[in-house]
Amino acid sequence: MTDTNTNMRLKLPITCFILEIILIILFGVLVEYDKETDAKKWHNSSHSEYDNDFYYRYPSFQDVHVMIFIGFGFLMTFLQRYGFSSVGFNFLIAALALQWATLMQGFFHGMHGGKIHVGVESMINADFCTGSVLISFGAVLGKTSPVQLLVMAVFEVTLFAVNEFILLSLLGTRDAGGSMTIHTFGAYFGLMVTRVLYRPNLDKSKHKNSSVYHSDMFAMIGTLYLWMFWPSFNSAITEHGDDQHRTALNTYYSLAACTLSTYAMSALTAHDGKLDMVHIQNAALAGGVAAGTAGEMMLTPFGSMIVGFVAGIISVLGYKYLSPILESKLKIQDTCGVHNLHGMPGVMGAIVGAVTASLATTEIYGDGMEDVFPDVADNTRSASSQGGIQAISLAVTLGMALVGGLLVGFIMKLPIYGAPSDASCFEDSIYWEVPGDEGSHEAQLTTVRTEEFAKPEETEKLN
Amino acid sequence: MTDTNTNMRLKLPITCFILEIILIILFGVLVEYDKETDAKKWHNSSHSEYDNDFYYRYPSFQDVHVMIFIGFGFLMTFLQRYGFSSVGFNFLIAALALQWATLMQGFFHGMHGGKIHVGVESMINADFCTGSVLISFGAVLGKTSPVQLLVMAVFEVTLFAVNEFILLSLLGTRDAGGSMTIHTFGAYFGLMVTRVLYRPNLDKSKHKNSSVYHSDMFAMIGTLYLWMFWPSFNSAITEHGDDQHRTALNTYYSLAACTLSTYAMSALTAHDGKLDMVHIQNAALAGGVAAGTAGEMMLTPFGSMIVGFVAGIISVLGYKYLSPILESKLKIQDTCGVHNLHGMPGVMGAIVGAVTASLATTEIYGDGMEDVFPDVADNTRSASSQGGIQAISLAVTLGMALVGGLLVGFIMKLPIYGAPSDASCFEDSIYWEVPGDEGSHEAQLTTVRTEEFAKPEETEKLN
Amino acid sequence: MTDTNTNMRLKLPITCFILEIILIILFGVLVEYDKETDAKKWHNSSHSEYDNDFYYRYPSFQDVHVMIFIGFGFLMTFLQRYGFSSVGFNFLIAALALQWATLMQGFFHGMHGGKIHVGVESMINADFCTGSVLISFGAVLGKTSPVQLLVMAVFEVTLFAVNEFILLSLLGTRDAGGSMTIHTFGAYFGLMVTRVLYRPNLDKSKHKNSSVYHSDMFAMIGTLYLWMFWPSFNSAITEHGDDQHRTALNTYYSLAACTLSTYAMSALTAHDGKLDMVHIQNAALAGGVAAGTAGEMMLTPFGSMIVGFVAGIISVLGYKYLSPILESKLKIQDTCGVHNLHGMPGVMGAIVGAVTASLATTEIYGDGMEDVFPDVADNTRSASSQGGIQAISLAVTLGMALVGGLLVGFIMKLPIYGAPSDASCFEDSIYWEVPGDEGSHEAQLTTVRTEEFAKPEETEKLN
Repeated sequence: MTDTNTNMRLKLPITCFILEIILIILFGVLVEYDKETDAKKWHNSSHSEYDNDFYYRYPSFQDVHVMIFIGFGFLMTFLQRYGFSSVGFNFLIAALALQWATLMQGFFHGMHGGKIHVGVESMINADFCTGSVLISFGAVLGKTSPVQLLVMAVFEVTLFAVNEFILLSLLGTRDAGGSMTIHTFGAYFGLMVTRVLYRPNLDKSKHKNSSVYHSDMFAMIGTLYLWMFWPSFNSAITEHGDDQHRTALNTYYSLAACTLSTYAMSALTAHDGKLDMVHIQNAALAGGVAAGTAGEMMLTPFGSMIVGFVAGIISVLGYKYLSPILESKLKIQDTCGVHNLHGMPGVMGAIVGAVTASLATTEIYGDGMEDVFPDVADNTRSASSQGGIQAISLAVTLGMALVGGLLVGFIMKLPIYGAPSDASCFEDSIYWEVPGDEGSHEAQLTTVRTEEFAKPEETEKLN
Repeated sequence: MTDTNTNMRLKLPITCFILEIILIILFGVLVEYDKETDAKKWHNSSHSEYDNDFYYRYPSFQDVHVMIFIGFGFLMTFLQRYGFSSVGFNFLIAALALQWATLMQGFFHGMHGGKIHVGVESMINADFCTGSVLISFGAVLGKTSPVQLLVMAVFEVTLFAVNEFILLSLLGTRDAGGSMTIHTFGAYFGLMVTRVLYRPNLDKSKHKNSSVYHSDMFAMIGTLYLWMFWPSFNSAITEHGDDQHRTALNTYYSLAACTLSTYAMSALTAHDGKLDMVHIQNAALAGGVAAGTAGEMMLTPFGSMIVGFVAGIISVLGYKYLSPILESKLKIQDTCGVHNLHGMPGVMGAIVGAVTASLATTEIYGDGMEDVFPDVADNTRSASSQGGIQAISLAVTLGMALVGGLLVGFIMKLPIYGAPSDASCFEDSIYWEVPGDEGSHEAQLTTVRTEEFAKPEETEKLN
Repeated sequence: MTDTNTNMRLKLPITCFILEIILIILFGVLVEYDKETDAKKWHNSSHSEYDNDFYYRYPSFQDVHVMIFIGFGFLMTFLQRYGFSSVGFNFLIAALALQWATLMQGFFHGMHGGKIHVGVESMINADFCTGSVLISFGAVLGKTSPVQLLVMAVFEVTLFAVNEFILLSLLGTRDAGGSMTIHTFGAYFGLMVTRVLYRPNLDKSKHKNSSVYHSDMFAMIGTLYLWMFWPSFNSAITEHGDDQHRTALNTYYSLAACTLSTYAMSALTAHDGKLDMVHIQNAALAGGVAAGTAGEMMLTPFGSMIVGFVAGIISVLGYKYLSPILESKLKIQDTCGVHNLHGMPGVMGAIVGAVTASLATTEIYGDGMEDVFPDVADNTRSASSQGGIQAISLAVTLGMALVGGLLVGFIMKLPIYGAPSDASCFEDSIYWEVPGDEGSHEAQLTTVRTEEFAKPEETEKLN
């Protein structure tokens, strides 16, 4: 990380242009409309226009889309001088990742005569994969150049698709809301990357690694959109009917319970009982992560609330006690604390999913078993084997994330991407034209100040 | 309000934990999936997966959800030093209220074999009830501790459910968008609470009971989301088909007309003709409130626009002339002016609903009468009796709200909840860890300032 | 523009009241529910309640609605002292325009027995027309009074409806997302208006015609909502089924590719390689504009990405090199650079649409031809004639916009509307009650400052 030539004038355009041109060529060669989006194919069979899957997935897609761009983007604007980068790099790498994910997931999820088919489901899946990259972004936030992030996105999307393929296609794992594929993978991948990129002298920019009043307000926009739309996220690609409905409902209760336990723990762990915005902005979301696998199952509102309640407690404790240890002992500098929001709650969600799966019976699921556990419904495996598979999937995901993050971390460490120096981390102005910070009435005071500074005798006094 | 031990370290966690654990236990005992969310029950009958009510209610639910958490939350961030509390306590009490409301409404709206059934309709209803609590929160904003608010939420949700039961189930009142059940109830309940909690020396924190430039911008986010999604709010639980469609349309026109009259009145009532953000942020929404009851009826776009137009005028006049009188004469300190946004427009909406109902004829409604006025359609009562019932319902609601608010106000007045002192009202820092307020470039000035303060001779001079 | 009596006390209320009362009267005389919103008509025929178009258009409508009020409104808040006006006047003129557009479009699009029918389609169309007015608002942002803007809205909506009628009804042009009808029209209309309102001494307020840190953050909220929901915008009124689905998909890819090329060009065109918020906020959206006409066609993801990629490049180049020339040579002061975001990409979108249309074959479209090119499907015209018609439509639109903007510009130039003086442009405080700008902790410093200023000897020193 010693390369401080952070001028992006050539690096960023070259990277973006090369990546986008490759994408366009590959899309030209490989991608075609699926039968729901193709004028000819859709009109070839007899059905109502209203049967198009657009009407049953697109509202969920848009909610997910808001989570990716507004939710993740603004959640990370809490840093005082890094708002442009948080929301702007989030925007850039998400726009790249969703295109690349379409290809990678299309490739692994099954080609149709050599072609990748696209429609609203591929859009949702691509956004999901993008979410994983953005989680990793949270771990390295403030310490990487946009080129490094693009490189990370390309590799992480690829590994995400491999892991997802192993889980969903090879193992027959259930993970509708991605406790494993998205959250656990994204978090531990990012943690390993930030470990490899460890900066021993990061305290040089320590004073910028914190929030100010307004940046915390902007971050709450991100938090609330994530919180509100998480039920749509977890239910976006479950089977239609009761499955989507139930998943949304379970997630909604998990989040509500999580919010109460987050506030409780935030006050309890502070000497003066004051609430900490870091906890509210993040830990209150852990209930959504933890309901990511079991949300589509017959978890019941009761079970969902317990899951959310515990997730909130774990997450706050993580922010309060574990993160400092990870930094001091394991040299993991986790800017957004993704280990507390996505890592531990993701692992917890995987375990809850494994347990819930192993308890599945026909008495509970009836004919709905086919939607939730197709392998159990057709007697390919028992409910307890399904539970076992779910547990194995967690191990696979952790392995893929840690090894993948290690490798990609070393690629990102090459001193060619214009990473910021230790002293210029968490600072927009190295990559952005940053205007002043005066507001309307403020400006009058500014004028006075400027005059003040202009007077030599005053300036002398001040310095 | 003399207890100024505002340390929440034990009070808040204990309250949250007890409430959430009670909720979890009650959910475990009482709540089960309805037939649209249960894997077995849904797959027991023959229908398309696409018939699930999820697809016909969930988009509306998400719009309502955004109104509750972003809409109400950010609308109240207009105060200069109370943004964390506005959006944060809104988040906390909404997360509690929606859980408690599920139980209370489920209990009153009919149990199924001793069980409360949940699905997207219960989610919408719970959010509606929560909206009522948040309206009351607006009246006491800045003057209560989070524990007081949780206590208020528990009692208010209960009384809301009783009132809603009396109106919708016993009296057969129509109130799709809740002009009465939500707005009138929430407003007068909150006004009575704030009356009981009257603080004669509130002017000690007067300088903080106002906005700054950026806080007004944040508040506009809340306003616009409420404004845009109000058509979804009013139509969220009407009957399917023309009813939802018409309700959304009527509300849309009412709001548009209201916006024009709000801007007009805001300029007209200012000496210098300058627009007042308080009016724009609030009064422009009165059209949604006032169309809450009649919105589902054959009000016509023409009628809707008149309703919105008048509501905007009334609301601005309320902010300008009535609120100061309420405070000075009746000792009602209504921080957000909920009387002007929810109180008067709610009463107006109830009256418009009563009149519109009494004018209903088969000639106008055709077979659609059954959806809008089932009691009129099956000749249980005449249209004019329906109108009478609507009027009586307003009186019942006002009575319930005022008496309920009085009682709950006294409960909240107990000096055990850590309410802020008069001087520390409208101030985040008593309940929140509050960071500094410097932005990017500002920070350089801050450094100078800090040095300045550090110099003893300078500091002496300043003080 | 010499009338600096900017007091709106009578001008604004009179304008608003007259306009709204005229609207209400005309709605009373002319408007009635369509068969999907009318209780009697809907229940007259046999269909499922779920067949109501509400369920297939309303989610798209709400996305468009958010783009109009939050998207456009916050995109324009980038100016440091003009946030209230940006979001507030956007709100006002949009509320007016959508009502007036309902009448104008209803009139031109076909009356039913002397009546204009309204429902979710008219709501979407009205919002579309409003979008065009808001684009023009972007060109004159900061330099007009609210009364001027209302006058502009009334005339522009009327001309929009005429142009739309010529294109869609007379010529049989396809323009689902409005590259021509909305973007090209709105942009060139606004550019002509701002040309007529040219202010030679605008540099008097030059220091306010720029952003500050937080205003750029607010603007990003607008950008992202526009970006995320643009797929809904372009697909909102296409035919049901594959058409809506495909349009959303194409737009999504166009925007993703556009984002990459925007970031690349922004860094490339800066001496120090730093990204410029102006480009990110605006040019990244050009892909949505440029896919406005061809989006519903079989453009393919490949084609969509090329369109977006090129649009981003053109747009950044426009901001960087063309806008200064337009201002210095052609006296066009385009505050938001609508020429770069809506003008050039709109023209490009029209051309792409013409080319794509001329390449349409039955082999590609199958029976879907009827939805996309009904005139080609029924052999009224060939695909290449359709392409020709599309090209002619662009010319018609440009002509209507330029002549219309010229005329309306002169009407707006009358010195009776209270336009701001050159020195008070880009300034909220002439039309709004503007509070101070101090945040929470800042306030303590303010107190110190105030004391400081209060001390005569200090004040002397400072001045």
